[in-house]
This record gives sequence, C-alpha cells and structure tokens, in this order.
Amino acid sequence: MPNESETTVSRRDLLSLVGSVAGSAAMYQAMTSLGFASETNYKGPIKLAGDTKGASVLVLGAGLAGMTAALELRAAGYKVQVLEFNTRPGGRNWSLRGGDSFTELGGATQACGFEDGLYLNPGPWRIPYHHRALLDYCKRLGVALEPFIQLNHNALLHASTAFAGKPQRIRDIKTDFQGHVSELLAKTTQQGKLDEAVTVEDKEILLQALRSWGALDKNYAYQANLISAAYRGYAKDPGGGLGAAPVAGEVIKLQDILKSRLWGYLRNFSLHEFQTTMFQPVGGMDMIGKAFAREVGDLIQFDAKVTRIQQSDGGVTVNFVNSKAPSAQQTATADWCVCTIPLSILSQINIQVGPRMKAAIDAVPYSSSVKIGLQFKRRFWEEDESIYGGISYTDLPIRQISYPSSGFNRSGRGVLLGAYVYEGANSYEFTSMAPADRIARAVEFGSRIHPQYRAEFENGIAVAWHRVPFTLGCAGSWTEKARAEHYDNLCQIDGRIVLAGEHASYIPAWQEGAILSSLDAITRLHERVVRR
Amino acid sequence: MPNESETTVSRRDLLSLVGSVAGSAAMYQAMTSLGFASETNYKGPIKLAGDTKGASVLVLGAGLAGMTAALELRAAGYKVQVLEFNTRPGGRNWSLRGGDSFTELGGATQACGFEDGLYLNPGPWRIPYHHRALLDYCKRLGVALEPFIQLNHNALLHASTAFAGKPQRIRDIKTDFQGHVSELLAKTTQQGKLDEAVTVEDKEILLQALRSWGALDKNYAYQANLISAAYRGYAKDPGGGLGAAPVAGEVIKLQDILKSRLWGYLRNFSLHEFQTTMFQPVGGMDMIGKAFAREVGDLIQFDAKVTRIQQSDGGVTVNFVNSKAPSAQQTATADWCVCTIPLSILSQINIQVGPRMKAAIDAVPYSSSVKIGLQFKRRFWEEDESIYGGISYTDLPIRQISYPSSGFNRSGRGVLLGAYVYEGANSYEFTSMAPADRIARAVEFGSRIHPQYRAEFENGIAVAWHRVPFTLGCAGSWTEKARAEHYDNLCQIDGRIVLAGEHASYIPAWQEGAILSSLDAITRLHERVVRR
Repeated sequence: MPNESETTVSRRDLLSLVGSVAGSAAMYQAMTSLGFASETNYKGPIKLAGDTKGASVLVLGAGLAGMTAALELRAAGYKVQVLEFNTRPGGRNWSLRGGDSFTELGGATQACGFEDGLYLNPGPWRIPYHHRALLDYCKRLGVALEPFIQLNHNALLHASTAFAGKPQRIRDIKTDFQGHVSELLAKTTQQGKLDEAVTVEDKEILLQALRSWGALDKNYAYQANLISAAYRGYAKDPGGGLGAAPVAGEVIKLQDILKSRLWGYLRNFSLHEFQTTMFQPVGGMDMIGKAFAREVGDLIQFDAKVTRIQQSDGGVTVNFVNSKAPSAQQTATADWCVCTIPLSILSQINIQVGPRMKAAIDAVPYSSSVKIGLQFKRRFWEEDESIYGGISYTDLPIRQISYPSSGFNRSGRGVLLGAYVYEGANSYEFTSMAPADRIARAVEFGSRIHPQYRAEFENGIAVAWHRVPFTLGCAGSWTEKARAEHYDNLCQIDGRIVLAGEHASYIPAWQEGAILSSLDAITRLHERVVRR
Repeated sequence: MPNESETTVSRRDLLSLVGSVAGSAAMYQAMTSLGFASETNYKGPIKLAGDTKGASVLVLGAGLAGMTAALELRAAGYKVQVLEFNTRPGGRNWSLRGGDSFTELGGATQACGFEDGLYLNPGPWRIPYHHRALLDYCKRLGVALEPFIQLNHNALLHASTAFAGKPQRIRDIKTDFQGHVSELLAKTTQQGKLDEAVTVEDKEILLQALRSWGALDKNYAYQANLISAAYRGYAKDPGGGLGAAPVAGEVIKLQDILKSRLWGYLRNFSLHEFQTTMFQPVGGMDMIGKAFAREVGDLIQFDAKVTRIQQSDGGVTVNFVNSKAPSAQQTATADWCVCTIPLSILSQINIQVGPRMKAAIDAVPYSSSVKIGLQFKRRFWEEDESIYGGISYTDLPIRQISYPSSGFNRSGRGVLLGAYVYEGANSYEFTSMAPADRIARAVEFGSRIHPQYRAEFENGIAVAWHRVPFTLGCAGSWTEKARAEHYDNLCQIDGRIVLAGEHASYIPAWQEGAILSSLDAITRLHERVVRR
C-alpha cells in the first residue's frame, strides 16, 4: 500500500539502522553461508498441532489479520468469535463501486457513481510476488489474480518547473539517464582514470557492457541515432510498405535530466517492493476480504464498536456497542484475545495491558494518505497516448496518476487513480478539504498532465485515510527509534491478549504484514495454550 | 516474434545504417521541430474513399496481412476472394492446444497432448504497446488482451561457466551491475575526474542521482546492506511479529558479473520492442486470427496451394491445387492481386512480375527459429521459486525459458515455453532433430535450470519453423544491404500485383509489420484503381 515517498523515509531509517547495528556484517556472513536464496517468512500453511483444550478466542477486527486468525484458529479447534466495526469484512482491504456510499469523519457522505465493473481500491491495490503468505491465501481461497502494472515505460514523469512543464515519457528519461551515465563512465574508463578500481582485463568487458546497457555507439557516445532509438523509442516508428524507415528523435541532455530531478522517480521501478511481477485480484482488492469472509463470515459480528478490553487470569472481557446505534453496552468473553484494531483506534480504547504494551500502542503515529478515483467517458490514456496501466509521477499535489491494470484496450468508460498522496503537506491539505473539493482539485491538477480530463471527466470519489472512522489513518508509521524501543513490546503476548496487524510487522501498510503478523501471533498464542 | 539474438543482428544493421546515412542529422532536426512526440505509422482505421468501379481483388494468404486486406478492401467495395494454403486462418498467428496435430516437412506428425485451456503460441506471442494497428484491430474485432510479462525481476539468468553453473536472479544481476557502475562513476566524480564533462553544479546533483539510482550508501559505496537489499531483495525478507527484521544478502562482485556476461541480457528489458506494457490475447494468440476470420472467413478458400501467378493488362490469373489432394489444377482470376505469400515460398512459385520485384523476392532469406512447449504436472516455477511469467535466459541451447503469463497462482498443470531459439547454430541443430528428440533435449537442458523438470514433465510439442510447410522459415531476415537494394522494389506495385506481409515492412517478424504493410499496399492499390 505505501507509495514511494513512504519508501524514502523507510530507506533513511534503514540506513541509520545499518549504521547502528554493529553486528550486521556477521549476519550477512551467516546468511551467505546458506546460499543466495531469499528466505521468506512464510513456509506454507500454518500447522497448529496439539490440544486446544476447548479454549476460546475473541478476535477483534475482521481485516486480513483478524480473519486469518479466525480461519486458522477455528481450524485448529478453537471456539472463535470476531467483532468488527464495519458492516462488511476486510477493513482496509476495500473496493468502492457504483452504488456504494461512504461516510467519513465529520459526516460527509460520498455516493460512488462508477459504472458497473469499475472500481477504486482506496487501500491496498497491489501485491508483490514475494508476498508469499498473501499469495498462498489467494490460492487456497480461490481469488483470481491478474498482473498489476507498476512500471509502464510509456507513462509520464512530470516536473512543473522542468521542460516547460511538459510531461516526459518514462522511457525517455530512463534511457537517456542510463545512456549518459554509461557514456561518462565509458569515457572515464577509456581515459585510464579507473585504473585502480578495475583490472585491465575487466575494463574491456566493462566497456562492452556499458555499450550494450547504455545504448552507446561504437565510439561509446550516447546520442540521437537508431541505436538509442531502439531503446528509447523513435520520432517516427518503423512501419510497413514504402517510406517506412524509422527515424530517431533527439535525446535529452544529461544536465536537463539532472536539473529536472525526474531521475528520482526511476527507483520506483527497481525497488524490491515494486518489482515485476506484481498482482491485483481480478475485480477489485476486496475479492480477498470477501474470500476470507466466505470461510469465517459466520464467526463475525458486524457493526460492533469495541469500547473496553479487560483481562484476568480467567480470560478476556470485551465491551462493545452497536456502531450504528451505540446505546446498549454488550459484552463478549473468551479465554484469549487476538486484537487487530489499528493502534490509532486502540490507543483511544481502555485496554487492560501492561505499561510496556500500552506505551507501544501509544507510540506509533499513523500515516496520512489520500486516494482519489476518477471516472472518464473513455480510456483516453490508452486511445490517445498509448498508456496501458502503470503510474505517471508528478510534483503537483496529486503526486501520481495510475491507470487501470484491467480492461485493457476496451472501449467505453474507465476509472483511474487521479491522486495518490502519501504523507507530506499535500496529504494533509487534501484531507482538510471537503470531498467534492478534493475531486475538483484532482481534476484541475490532472488536466495539466492530460488535457483530456476537462472534456472526459464524469465523477469521482476521494478517500482521505485520516478521516476514515475505522482506522483514522492509513497505516502504522514506525520510526527506527520507535521500533527499537517499542516493537517487541507491542508483539509480546500480554497475559491473555496478543496484538496483530500490519502495525505489528516489518512490512507496514502491506497486507502481507498483517497476515504474517497474525500467523506469528497465533502461533505463539497456541504454543502457550498447548503448554499450559 | 523475434527474440533478442535477432535484435542483436538488427542493432548491428542499424549501426551501419546510421554510419552510412550522412543526412540523418538533418532528419533528427526535422523531426525535432515537430516535438518529442513519437509518430506512429497508424492513424486509425483506414479510409479507402472513392469509386472502386466494381473491381475485384484476389488475396493470396489468409494470415494477418491477407485478412487485413480482405476486410478493408471488401469494406471499400471491392469483390474479394482469398486463397489460403492451410485449413485454418491466421498463418503464423497460431496456437497449439490439446487435440491439435501438426505435420512438418519430412512427414513427422506431432499430436498435442496439452490439458484443456493450456496452449503454445509457436509464432508471435507478445504485442508491444506501440503496435497501434494491431491493437486497434484487436479492439475493433473484440479480442480481449491481458499483460504479457517480459521482464520478471525474479526470473533467472544462467551462464554455464559462471557462478558454478548456478542460475542467478535477474534482480540480483541488474541491481548489482547498476550499483557497481553507479559507485564507480560516483567515486570518479568525487575525485574530480569528470571536471570537463560535468559542471560543478551538476556534479552535486549527479551524485545524488547515482546514490538514488544505484542504491549507494552515504559514502557512495555499493555494498551488502539494507539499502541495496531494498532493491535487490533480502537474504531474509521482512516479516511480521517477533524476530521479523529483514537481513541483507551478499552482493555479487562487479568482476564476477562482467566475466559471466550475464549483463548482456539486461537490454532485453529496456529495448523499445520489449518494454512494458506488452500484451497477449486471452486464450492464445490465434484469437486474433479467429477474430479476423469471423469477419472475412466467407471469402477464404482453404487448402488452396498456389502454383502460378500470371498477369496481363486485363487482370491476374492464379493457378492453385488442393493442398491435400493436389491433382486437379484450379484457376482464380481478378482485376488485382494482393500477394502475402512468404518470400521463402513465393520465390519457388512461378510469378509473372518484373525483374526488380523478382530479384527482391529472391533476395530475402528466412530466419530459423524453434519453439518448444512443455507441459508439467504443476506450476513449480510459481510454487517453488516465486517466478510468475517472464523469461529466464541461458547460454544452453534452449536459450530461453518463458513462464506463462496467464493462470497465475493457480493449482494444477501448466505449459511453459521450454526453448526459444532464434537463428544461430542451436536453431539449426534443433531443427535437424526429430520432434521427440527436440523435446527430450529441452527437458534435459531445462532441468539444469529447474531440477523439478525431471519429476514434473508430462509432454511437449516442438515447432521448427524451417520445417513448417506454409512458411519454410520464421520471418524475412533483411540485411541492411539487401534492404537498400531490394526493399522498395519489393513494395512497389508491379502491374496488377502488390506484395504485403511482415517481409514487406521495417518491423520484420512482428504482426504489426504484416498489418502496416498490408494497409500501405492496399492504400496504394486503391489510389491506382480510383485514378484510372
């Protein structure tokens, strides 16, 4: 779910983490002796063997963490009950379609006017290939997947102050940056300036590699010709019949790319989180939540707003009210509790846990995020601009425009993601607006990237996560300092209560984090039950 | 349809072309004044306005070029007849499924044993986003498309003599090469060795860009840490709950990457031809041929083997026999002829054209190519290795293994492309084998990349294009010299005959070339008819 600005923060944190962990070199050595293979945290379906002794578990929250716990704990023999604030399962695993309505904090209600078959995923919207647990649940629960296009070479990069405000094709910026960098290094190599770093034998291969990789000519120059055009695309494409020879376009100067800072977006296509092949469920992300609910829906009490969580040596007592008619207090009890309520909410609930867990619950702010879906009369991005899926990036407040990864090449209406703002001033600015204003602004800004917006726009819906009643924010936003101080305390079992969710993982804001956190929590809970 | 070895040849040709075309700089200037926008050769549905005067056209071949001509000429008012050698439409637009059988030159017949729903595309198998004409016909004819995954960061690169023969993840080679190159250039920059090439102001931005792009640490070093791991992947992935912190793996040394020559494959993911977003028709490439045939199937006479093509001032006369029972000569006549028969076949047919077109027909050899589809009991590449679609490259004779871009994450059987050899000695070697031997060799070689092959293999089918009776080769293989001498002569209208097909285009071996060639040919033919 996080976008790239979030990742930037995370990289900085990791950097200081590496600096502070003196023993990390030893860890690499240890891992390396096991070979290069990546070790996943998911080893296939969980096995909770042993006698549950008739124990009961109360699960708070029917998002992916809660439903994973409910599914696996029932299968292991527990008596399970789930309380869920919303009227639907899934939590942030959520899709908005025509006919849906949504009321945010402050009371503004939006009715979604999308055409049948079109949707917006306000929360998570893509699945990396290395999210093994989530993919396995999709397989086991029969959720059909299709590719999510993260990198589309023909999508756009846009800087308001560069190239006279004209968006550039990703393929041009990517190829030209790589070409110029290759030329610089090749020339340096030829001039003998790398002599210390590279052996004579390797230098010759390096030159060959730079020529291939950077689309250099025989003199190791990167310039406008049919060599670079074979990578970046042509001014006139090759065709058929007479007069069909291709023509190369100009290349962009290195200094213009550097000053534009558009190079900063290129990492979004090589980060492990966003590498090919990514997926999305066919028909909307909530197909996953619905699939879980087909298994455990009978255990879920919807519209249940938890107001108090108490525990004793004998078990757990949870008070709740009907979230739509909060008059009469109700009570649920069980031997154990798996609480997946977001920390942003949980920190406001009276919960009977020790001071260390309580401090951890209070220590994690939630990130701000806004997503805006816009419906247009036609898929002009495909028809006019040959952009099929992927993401255009801009320094305008909307930050991203993402084109749908389904319904490719079809006639008729389409919904694109007209803004995806994650943290930062723009996010708070959009959150503070009325929904209609958010949409109007998204159309206004977007029309500077795609002028077709003005004529083709029909309707939109805008979700600002800090105004979403069931999370009051997008996802747990850990700093490295907070993690060092509080993370383990958050994850430890406190008496009869254990927490789970993306906030209790090293993959915050991703569904995989929620599931892996839940599997780890119930594994430890189960061990405790069996051991007793 | 071409693979990357073909592209290598093409690049070399382009290089000499650039060198020889003195006026190309002027062309860039001319193009540049029009802006950076790429000019496609397809401007939307063709418009053949004007009086056809009741003229008739005989189209030879019901591949994509022939059926495009038939569809558009009938729509313009011509009387159209199509003669086709095969019993099915599509030509090289072809998919093999369970129950199909195929007899190659020499008489060997293969029966395809694939499970229902699985298939091999022996010919074209992917569609670039910039093939505007093909995409438009797919839209007009209702052919559903889905993404074809060309670049999968988690697929493999394999060199028999490097890394002890152990395949490497593409993401590791790609990230590590880019990281080391960035480090080299960053250090050179810091040492003041770039002073002539880059201004002081730009140097600082260049360093920032290299750090971001190359996953360098704060000292501009590329090494094993959580910064590079965020790009290349982890030795231990981040997880959920306790003990979930990620661990970085080792990076591969630059000299090891250089010596392995695995860097040579990286260009296959940035070449314009293979850039994201690519497509394939849902259910098999022949969905396109079938969609065309729904429109023009009534015009096609199947099993018609052309034996002679004559023309006079009054029209065209074509002799043909039944390709399955070649006894009685039959004759078709028309005012005009659009001939899409591959040059490999046409050069063996008595055709009455001038010496320049005849020389052109005889001047183009056809490339050699072999594709082998293998069915396995389960999709082990996904289940065991997290490889979803994309291509692994190897220096073994099979050259490529491509994983299916459909049915992702499903249980049950799967068909992958177990060999894709284009030109070169390996291609001729595979062509010379009996089909069963080709398959056995593909399984043997493939098991060195994926040991699961031995236990999971079920059956296969192997198409060697030089033994395919209707083409005797894969596609027209133009040299730059041949193009300069013959291409225009091949495309000119000769009396009442005009040629079309991928061989009459600058996009050889691609379906787009066939369609664009056909549209150009019939446009010129129609102008001549209207002008008369």
